[in-house]
Amino acid sequence: MTSETPPRRGRGRRPAAEVRAGVLRAAADLLLGEGIKAVTFDRVAAAAGSSKVTLYKWWPSAGALAAEAYFTHSAPRLEFPDTGDLRADLITQMRAFVRLLTAGGAGPVIAGLIGVAQTDPELSAAFSRHYSRPRRALALTTFEKARDRGELRPDVDLTLLVDQLWGACYHRLLVPDEPLTEDFAVALVDNALDGARPR
Amino acid sequence: MTSETPPRRGRGRRPAAEVRAGVLRAAADLLLGEGIKAVTFDRVAAAAGSSKVTLYKWWPSAGALAAEAYFTHSAPRLEFPDTGDLRADLITQMRAFVRLLTAGGAGPVIAGLIGVAQTDPELSAAFSRHYSRPRRALALTTFEKARDRGELRPDVDLTLLVDQLWGACYHRLLVPDEPLTEDFAVALVDNALDGARPR
Repeated sequence: MTSETPPRRGRGRRPAAEVRAGVLRAAADLLLGEGIKAVTFDRVAAAAGSSKVTLYKWWPSAGALAAEAYFTHSAPRLEFPDTGDLRADLITQMRAFVRLLTAGGAGPVIAGLIGVAQTDPELSAAFSRHYSRPRRALALTTFEKARDRGELRPDVDLTLLVDQLWGACYHRLLVPDEPLTEDFAVALVDNALDGARPR
Repeated sequence: MTSETPPRRGRGRRPAAEVRAGVLRAAADLLLGEGIKAVTFDRVAAAAGSSKVTLYKWWPSAGALAAEAYFTHSAPRLEFPDTGDLRADLITQMRAFVRLLTAGGAGPVIAGLIGVAQTDPELSAAFSRHYSRPRRALALTTFEKARDRGELRPDVDLTLLVDQLWGACYHRLLVPDEPLTEDFAVALVDNALDGARPR
Protein backbone atom coordinates (compact mmCIF):
# COMPACT_ATOMS: atom_id res chain seq x y z
CA MET A 1 0.00 0.00 0.00
CA THR A 2 1.09 3.63 -0.36
CA SER A 3 2.84 5.62 2.31
CA GLU A 4 1.90 9.06 0.97
CA THR A 5 -1.75 9.04 1.99
CA PRO A 6 -2.60 12.70 2.54
CA PRO A 7 -3.70 14.02 5.93
CA ARG A 8 -7.42 14.36 6.71
CA ARG A 9 -7.39 17.36 9.16
CA GLY A 10 -5.58 17.37 12.52
CA ARG A 11 -4.93 13.75 13.13
CA GLY A 12 -3.51 13.50 9.62
CA ARG A 13 -0.24 14.71 11.05
CA ARG A 14 0.55 11.19 12.16
CA PRO A 15 2.75 9.38 9.64
CA ALA A 16 0.81 7.00 7.41
CA ALA A 17 2.71 3.96 8.67
CA GLU A 18 1.66 4.78 12.20
CA VAL A 19 -1.98 5.25 11.22
CA ARG A 20 -1.89 1.97 9.31
CA ALA A 21 -0.41 0.09 12.27
CA GLY A 22 -3.08 1.58 14.54
CA VAL A 23 -5.85 0.49 12.19
CA LEU A 24 -4.45 -3.05 12.00
CA ARG A 25 -4.21 -3.20 15.80
CA ALA A 26 -7.79 -2.01 16.19
CA ALA A 27 -8.98 -4.54 13.60
CA ALA A 28 -7.05 -7.35 15.32
CA ASP A 29 -8.59 -6.40 18.69
CA LEU A 30 -12.11 -6.54 17.23
CA LEU A 31 -11.36 -9.76 15.35
CA LEU A 32 -9.92 -11.58 18.37
CA GLY A 33 -12.41 -10.14 20.82
CA GLU A 34 -15.66 -10.45 18.91
CA GLY A 35 -14.97 -12.41 15.73
CA ILE A 36 -14.93 -11.70 12.01
CA LYS A 37 -18.39 -10.13 11.88
CA ALA A 38 -17.23 -7.32 14.20
CA VAL A 39 -14.59 -6.21 11.69
CA THR A 40 -16.51 -3.56 9.73
CA PHE A 41 -15.01 -0.35 8.35
CA ASP A 42 -17.32 1.63 10.66
CA ARG A 43 -16.20 -0.07 13.84
CA VAL A 44 -12.51 -0.24 12.96
CA ALA A 45 -12.44 3.44 11.94
CA ALA A 46 -14.10 4.41 15.22
CA ALA A 47 -11.79 2.24 17.31
CA ALA A 48 -8.65 3.47 15.55
CA GLY A 49 -9.68 7.14 15.46
CA SER A 50 -9.34 7.02 11.69
CA SER A 51 -11.67 7.92 8.86
CA LYS A 52 -13.53 5.35 6.78
CA VAL A 53 -12.18 7.09 3.66
CA THR A 54 -8.65 6.19 4.76
CA LEU A 55 -9.65 2.56 5.29
CA TYR A 56 -11.33 2.32 1.90
CA LYS A 57 -8.17 3.66 0.35
CA TRP A 58 -5.98 0.97 1.86
CA TRP A 59 -8.18 -2.12 1.91
CA PRO A 60 -10.63 -3.35 -0.75
CA SER A 61 -12.95 -4.85 1.89
CA ALA A 62 -13.32 -5.30 5.62
CA GLY A 63 -12.48 -8.99 5.08
CA ALA A 64 -9.16 -8.07 3.50
CA LEU A 65 -8.40 -5.79 6.45
CA ALA A 66 -9.28 -8.60 8.87
CA ALA A 67 -6.98 -11.05 7.11
CA GLU A 68 -4.04 -8.64 7.22
CA ALA A 69 -4.78 -7.81 10.85
CA TYR A 70 -4.70 -11.49 11.75
CA PHE A 71 -1.36 -11.94 10.04
CA THR A 72 0.13 -8.92 11.81
CA HIS A 73 -1.12 -10.25 15.12
CA SER A 74 0.00 -13.86 14.72
CA ALA A 75 3.36 -13.47 12.95
CA PRO A 76 5.45 -12.88 16.08
CA ARG A 77 3.83 -15.93 17.73
CA LEU A 78 4.65 -18.25 14.82
CA GLU A 79 8.38 -17.90 14.34
CA PHE A 80 10.17 -20.82 12.79
CA PRO A 81 13.13 -22.05 14.82
CA ASP A 82 16.22 -23.24 12.96
CA THR A 83 18.41 -25.36 15.20
CA GLY A 84 19.58 -27.68 12.44
CA ASP A 85 17.32 -30.53 13.61
CA LEU A 86 14.22 -30.62 11.40
CA ARG A 87 12.13 -32.90 13.59
CA ALA A 88 12.76 -30.84 16.72
CA ASP A 89 12.16 -27.55 14.90
CA LEU A 90 8.90 -28.79 13.36
CA ILE A 91 7.64 -30.05 16.70
CA THR A 92 8.43 -26.69 18.34
CA GLN A 93 6.69 -24.75 15.58
CA MET A 94 3.66 -27.04 15.27
CA ARG A 95 3.08 -27.07 19.02
CA ALA A 96 3.20 -23.27 19.10
CA PHE A 97 0.77 -23.20 16.16
CA VAL A 98 -1.70 -25.54 17.88
CA ARG A 99 -1.39 -23.59 21.15
CA LEU A 100 -2.19 -20.34 19.32
CA LEU A 101 -5.30 -21.95 17.77
CA THR A 102 -6.52 -23.55 21.01
CA ALA A 103 -5.38 -21.99 24.31
CA GLY A 104 -4.43 -18.77 22.46
CA GLY A 105 -8.00 -18.37 21.23
CA ALA A 106 -7.08 -17.81 17.57
CA GLY A 107 -8.89 -20.95 16.39
CA PRO A 108 -12.38 -19.49 15.98
CA VAL A 109 -10.88 -16.36 14.41
CA ILE A 110 -8.94 -18.14 11.71
CA ALA A 111 -11.83 -20.59 11.18
CA GLY A 112 -14.09 -17.58 10.66
CA LEU A 113 -11.64 -16.01 8.22
CA ILE A 114 -11.31 -19.18 6.16
CA GLY A 115 -15.09 -19.71 6.37
CA VAL A 116 -15.93 -16.26 5.03
CA ALA A 117 -13.14 -16.56 2.44
CA GLN A 118 -15.18 -19.28 0.70
CA THR A 119 -17.67 -16.65 -0.46
CA ASP A 120 -15.56 -13.44 -0.27
CA PRO A 121 -12.86 -13.37 -2.97
CA GLU A 122 -11.29 -10.17 -1.53
CA LEU A 123 -10.81 -11.83 1.83
CA SER A 124 -9.55 -15.01 0.19
CA ALA A 125 -6.94 -13.05 -1.77
CA ALA A 126 -5.87 -11.06 1.31
CA PHE A 127 -5.62 -14.20 3.41
CA SER A 128 -3.45 -15.80 0.78
CA ARG A 129 -1.24 -12.74 0.26
CA HIS A 130 -0.79 -11.75 3.89
CA TYR A 131 -1.02 -15.03 5.71
CA SER A 132 -1.00 -18.42 4.03
CA ARG A 133 1.54 -17.79 1.23
CA PRO A 134 4.15 -16.14 3.45
CA ARG A 135 3.77 -18.97 5.97
CA ARG A 136 4.12 -21.58 3.21
CA ALA A 137 7.29 -19.84 2.03
CA LEU A 138 8.77 -19.92 5.55
CA ALA A 139 8.10 -23.65 5.85
CA LEU A 140 9.57 -24.35 2.41
CA THR A 141 12.80 -22.55 3.31
CA THR A 142 13.08 -24.74 6.40
CA PHE A 143 12.40 -27.89 4.36
CA GLU A 144 14.94 -26.95 1.68
CA LYS A 145 17.65 -26.47 4.27
CA ALA A 146 16.77 -29.81 5.87
CA ARG A 147 16.87 -31.53 2.48
CA ASP A 148 20.31 -30.03 1.84
CA ARG A 149 21.43 -31.43 5.21
CA GLY A 150 20.18 -34.89 4.18
CA GLU A 151 17.19 -34.97 6.56
CA LEU A 152 14.64 -35.27 3.73
CA ARG A 153 14.70 -37.47 0.65
CA PRO A 154 15.63 -35.48 -2.47
CA ASP A 155 12.53 -36.70 -4.35
CA VAL A 156 9.97 -35.60 -1.76
CA ASP A 157 7.49 -32.88 -2.79
CA LEU A 158 8.22 -30.30 -0.10
CA THR A 159 5.08 -28.30 -0.86
CA LEU A 160 2.97 -31.31 0.05
CA LEU A 161 4.49 -31.48 3.53
CA VAL A 162 2.86 -28.15 4.34
CA ASP A 163 -0.56 -29.70 3.63
CA GLN A 164 0.25 -32.85 5.62
CA LEU A 165 1.32 -30.86 8.67
CA TRP A 166 -0.45 -27.50 8.99
CA GLY A 167 -3.20 -28.52 6.57
CA ALA A 168 -4.03 -31.51 8.77
CA CYS A 169 -4.41 -29.12 11.74
CA TYR A 170 -6.70 -26.82 9.74
CA HIS A 171 -8.77 -29.88 8.90
CA ARG A 172 -9.36 -30.61 12.61
CA LEU A 173 -10.05 -26.94 13.23
CA LEU A 174 -12.61 -26.59 10.44
CA VAL A 175 -14.20 -30.06 10.61
CA PRO A 176 -13.90 -30.72 14.34
CA ASP A 177 -14.56 -34.47 14.49
CA GLU A 178 -11.30 -35.17 16.35
CA PRO A 179 -9.42 -33.04 18.88
CA LEU A 180 -6.70 -30.58 17.88
CA THR A 181 -3.98 -31.08 20.48
CA GLU A 182 -0.22 -30.70 20.86
CA ASP A 183 0.08 -34.51 20.95
CA PHE A 184 -1.63 -34.61 17.57
CA ALA A 185 0.89 -32.06 16.26
CA VAL A 186 3.81 -34.20 17.42
CA ALA A 187 2.31 -37.35 15.89
CA LEU A 188 1.78 -35.50 12.59
CA VAL A 189 5.47 -34.59 12.44
CA ASP A 190 6.52 -38.15 13.25
CA ASN A 191 4.27 -39.67 10.61
CA ALA A 192 5.14 -37.13 7.92
CA LEU A 193 8.82 -37.94 8.44
CA ASP A 194 8.68 -41.67 9.20
CA GLY A 195 5.62 -42.86 7.25
CA ALA A 196 3.00 -45.31 8.41
CA ARG A 197 4.24 -48.53 6.85
CA PRO A 198 6.77 -50.69 8.65
CA ARG A 199 10.39 -49.64 8.09
CA MET B 1 -34.82 -31.69 -10.62
CA THR B 2 -36.77 -34.83 -9.94
CA SER B 3 -38.74 -36.52 -12.65
CA GLU B 4 -41.51 -37.87 -10.45
CA THR B 5 -42.35 -34.63 -8.68
CA PRO B 6 -45.85 -35.34 -7.40
CA PRO B 7 -48.95 -33.25 -7.88
CA ARG B 8 -49.60 -30.71 -5.13
CA ARG B 9 -52.86 -32.43 -4.18
CA GLY B 10 -52.86 -35.89 -2.66
CA ARG B 11 -49.12 -35.81 -1.96
CA GLY B 12 -49.78 -36.92 1.63
CA ARG B 13 -50.30 -40.45 0.36
CA ARG B 14 -46.64 -40.91 -0.54
CA PRO B 15 -44.63 -42.83 2.05
CA ALA B 16 -42.45 -40.61 4.22
CA ALA B 17 -39.22 -42.24 3.02
CA GLU B 18 -40.11 -41.40 -0.55
CA VAL B 19 -40.90 -37.79 0.28
CA ARG B 20 -37.67 -37.51 2.24
CA ALA B 21 -35.62 -38.88 -0.67
CA GLY B 22 -37.31 -36.45 -3.03
CA VAL B 23 -36.53 -33.50 -0.77
CA LEU B 24 -32.88 -34.55 -0.50
CA ARG B 25 -32.65 -34.90 -4.28
CA ALA B 26 -34.16 -31.46 -4.79
CA ALA B 27 -31.79 -29.96 -2.21
CA ALA B 28 -28.79 -31.64 -3.85
CA ASP B 29 -29.82 -30.29 -7.25
CA LEU B 30 -30.03 -26.75 -5.88
CA LEU B 31 -26.77 -27.13 -3.96
CA LEU B 32 -24.80 -28.46 -6.92
CA GLY B 33 -26.43 -26.19 -9.45
CA GLU B 34 -26.44 -22.88 -7.63
CA GLY B 35 -24.48 -23.30 -4.39
CA ILE B 36 -25.23 -23.33 -0.70
CA LYS B 37 -27.12 -20.01 -0.67
CA ALA B 38 -29.76 -21.47 -2.98
CA VAL B 39 -30.68 -24.14 -0.43
CA THR B 40 -33.51 -22.42 1.45
CA PHE B 41 -36.58 -24.19 2.81
CA ASP B 42 -38.73 -22.12 0.43
CA ARG B 43 -36.89 -23.16 -2.70
CA VAL B 44 -36.39 -26.80 -1.73
CA ALA B 45 -40.05 -27.17 -0.75
CA ALA B 46 -41.12 -25.69 -4.07
CA ALA B 47 -38.74 -27.85 -6.09
CA ALA B 48 -39.70 -31.04 -4.27
CA GLY B 49 -43.42 -30.34 -4.23
CA SER B 50 -43.33 -30.61 -0.46
CA SER B 51 -44.50 -28.31 2.28
CA LYS B 52 -42.14 -26.16 4.35
CA VAL B 53 -43.79 -27.61 7.47
CA THR B 54 -42.57 -31.06 6.47
CA LEU B 55 -39.04 -29.75 5.97
CA TYR B 56 -39.00 -27.99 9.34
CA LYS B 57 -40.09 -31.25 10.95
CA TRP B 58 -37.15 -33.19 9.54
CA TRP B 59 -34.29 -30.67 9.45
CA PRO B 60 -33.36 -28.06 12.05
CA SER B 61 -32.05 -25.67 9.38
CA ALA B 62 -31.56 -25.36 5.65
CA GLY B 63 -27.83 -25.82 6.26
CA ALA B 64 -28.46 -29.18 7.92
CA LEU B 65 -30.59 -30.23 4.96
CA ALA B 66 -27.85 -29.13 2.55
CA ALA B 67 -25.23 -31.16 4.41
CA GLU B 68 -27.35 -34.32 4.33
CA ALA B 69 -28.19 -33.75 0.68
CA TYR B 70 -24.51 -33.49 -0.17
CA PHE B 71 -23.77 -36.73 1.63
CA THR B 72 -26.60 -38.54 -0.14
CA HIS B 73 -25.36 -37.24 -3.47
CA SER B 74 -21.65 -38.00 -2.99
CA ALA B 75 -21.74 -41.33 -1.16
CA PRO B 76 -22.07 -43.54 -4.25
CA ARG B 77 -19.15 -41.67 -5.86
CA LEU B 78 -16.82 -42.20 -2.91
CA GLU B 79 -16.84 -45.92 -2.35
CA PHE B 80 -13.80 -47.42 -0.71
CA PRO B 81 -12.27 -50.28 -2.67
CA ASP B 82 -10.83 -53.21 -0.71
CA THR B 83 -8.48 -55.25 -2.88
CA GLY B 84 -6.11 -56.16 -0.06
CA ASP B 85 -3.46 -53.66 -1.23
CA LEU B 86 -3.70 -50.51 0.91
CA ARG B 87 -1.59 -48.26 -1.29
CA ALA B 88 -3.52 -49.13 -4.43
CA ASP B 89 -6.89 -48.81 -2.69
CA LEU B 90 -5.97 -45.43 -1.19
CA ILE B 91 -4.77 -44.12 -4.53
CA THR B 92 -8.01 -45.25 -6.21
CA GLN B 93 -10.16 -43.64 -3.53
CA MET B 94 -8.17 -40.41 -3.23
CA ARG B 95 -8.10 -39.90 -7.00
CA ALA B 96 -11.88 -40.37 -7.15
CA PHE B 97 -12.23 -37.90 -4.27
CA VAL B 98 -10.09 -35.26 -6.00
CA ARG B 99 -11.94 -35.81 -9.28
CA LEU B 100 -15.28 -35.29 -7.52
CA LEU B 101 -13.99 -32.02 -6.03
CA THR B 102 -12.46 -30.71 -9.25
CA ALA B 103 -13.84 -32.05 -12.56
CA GLY B 104 -16.98 -33.25 -10.75
CA GLY B 105 -17.75 -29.72 -9.61
CA ALA B 106 -18.31 -30.62 -5.95
CA GLY B 107 -15.37 -28.52 -4.74
CA PRO B 108 -17.15 -25.16 -4.44
CA VAL B 109 -20.16 -26.93 -2.91
CA ILE B 110 -18.26 -28.63 -0.13
CA ALA B 111 -16.10 -25.52 0.38
CA GLY B 112 -19.32 -23.53 0.80
CA LEU B 113 -20.70 -26.08 3.26
CA ILE B 114 -17.55 -26.06 5.39
CA GLY B 115 -17.37 -22.27 5.09
CA VAL B 116 -20.91 -21.71 6.36
CA ALA B 117 -20.40 -24.42 9.02
CA GLN B 118 -17.92 -22.08 10.75
CA THR B 119 -20.78 -19.83 11.81
CA ASP B 120 -23.77 -22.25 11.61
CA PRO B 121 -23.65 -24.88 14.38
CA GLU B 122 -26.65 -26.78 12.93
CA LEU B 123 -24.91 -27.17 9.60
CA SER B 124 -21.65 -28.08 11.32
CA ALA B 125 -23.39 -30.82 13.31
CA ALA B 126 -25.22 -32.15 10.23
CA PHE B 127 -22.03 -32.14 8.17
CA SER B 128 -20.29 -34.09 10.88
CA ARG B 129 -23.13 -36.57 11.41
CA HIS B 130 -24.01 -37.19 7.78
CA TYR B 131 -20.74 -36.68 6.00
CA SER B 132 -17.41 -36.35 7.74
CA ARG B 133 -17.85 -38.87 10.58
CA PRO B 134 -19.20 -41.67 8.38
CA ARG B 135 -16.36 -41.07 5.91
CA ARG B 136 -13.79 -41.13 8.74
CA ALA B 137 -15.25 -44.43 9.94
CA LEU B 138 -14.97 -45.98 6.46
CA ALA B 139 -11.32 -44.97 6.21
CA LEU B 140 -10.56 -46.30 9.69
CA THR B 141 -12.03 -49.70 8.82
CA THR B 142 -9.77 -49.83 5.79
CA PHE B 143 -6.74 -48.83 7.86
CA GLU B 144 -7.48 -51.38 10.58
CA LYS B 145 -7.67 -54.18 8.04
CA ALA B 146 -4.39 -53.03 6.48
CA ARG B 147 -2.73 -52.91 9.90
CA ASP B 148 -3.92 -56.45 10.59
CA ARG B 149 -2.36 -57.50 7.28
CA GLY B 150 0.95 -55.91 8.34
CA GLU B 151 0.80 -52.99 5.91
CA LEU B 152 0.80 -50.36 8.68
CA ARG B 153 2.94 -50.16 11.80
CA PRO B 154 0.97 -51.21 14.90
CA ASP B 155 1.86 -47.97 16.74
CA VAL B 156 0.57 -45.56 14.06
CA ASP B 157 -2.36 -43.32 14.99
CA LEU B 158 -4.80 -44.35 12.27
CA THR B 159 -7.10 -41.39 12.93
CA LEU B 160 -4.29 -39.03 12.03
CA LEU B 161 -3.91 -40.59 8.59
CA VAL B 162 -7.35 -39.29 7.69
CA ASP B 163 -6.14 -35.74 8.35
CA GLN B 164 -2.88 -36.28 6.44
CA LEU B 165 -4.71 -37.61 3.37
CA TRP B 166 -8.21 -36.15 2.96
CA GLY B 167 -7.51 -33.25 5.34
CA ALA B 168 -4.56 -32.20 3.18
CA CYS B 169 -6.91 -32.11 0.15
CA TYR B 170 -9.46 -30.01 2.04
CA HIS B 171 -6.63 -27.64 2.90
CA ARG B 172 -5.86 -27.06 -0.80
CA LEU B 173 -9.57 -26.73 -1.51
CA LEU B 174 -10.22 -24.14 1.22
CA VAL B 175 -6.91 -22.23 1.09
CA PRO B 176 -6.14 -22.55 -2.62
CA ASP B 177 -2.48 -21.55 -2.72
CA GLU B 178 -1.43 -24.75 -4.48
CA PRO B 179 -3.33 -26.89 -7.02
CA LEU B 180 -5.54 -29.80 -6.01
CA THR B 181 -4.73 -32.53 -8.54
CA GLU B 182 -4.76 -36.30 -8.84
CA ASP B 183 -0.93 -36.26 -8.85
CA PHE B 184 -1.08 -34.48 -5.51
CA ALA B 185 -3.40 -37.20 -4.19
CA VAL B 186 -0.98 -39.93 -5.25
CA ALA B 187 1.98 -38.12 -3.70
CA LEU B 188 0.02 -37.70 -0.44
CA VAL B 189 -0.54 -41.45 -0.23
CA ASP B 190 3.12 -42.19 -0.95
CA ASN B 191 4.36 -39.76 1.66
CA ALA B 192 1.87 -40.81 4.33
CA LEU B 193 3.02 -44.41 3.91
CA ASP B 194 6.75 -43.93 3.21
CA GLY B 195 7.60 -40.76 5.12
CA ALA B 196 9.82 -37.91 3.96
CA ARG B 197 13.10 -38.82 5.60
CA PRO B 198 15.53 -41.17 3.90
CA ARG B 199 14.80 -44.83 4.54
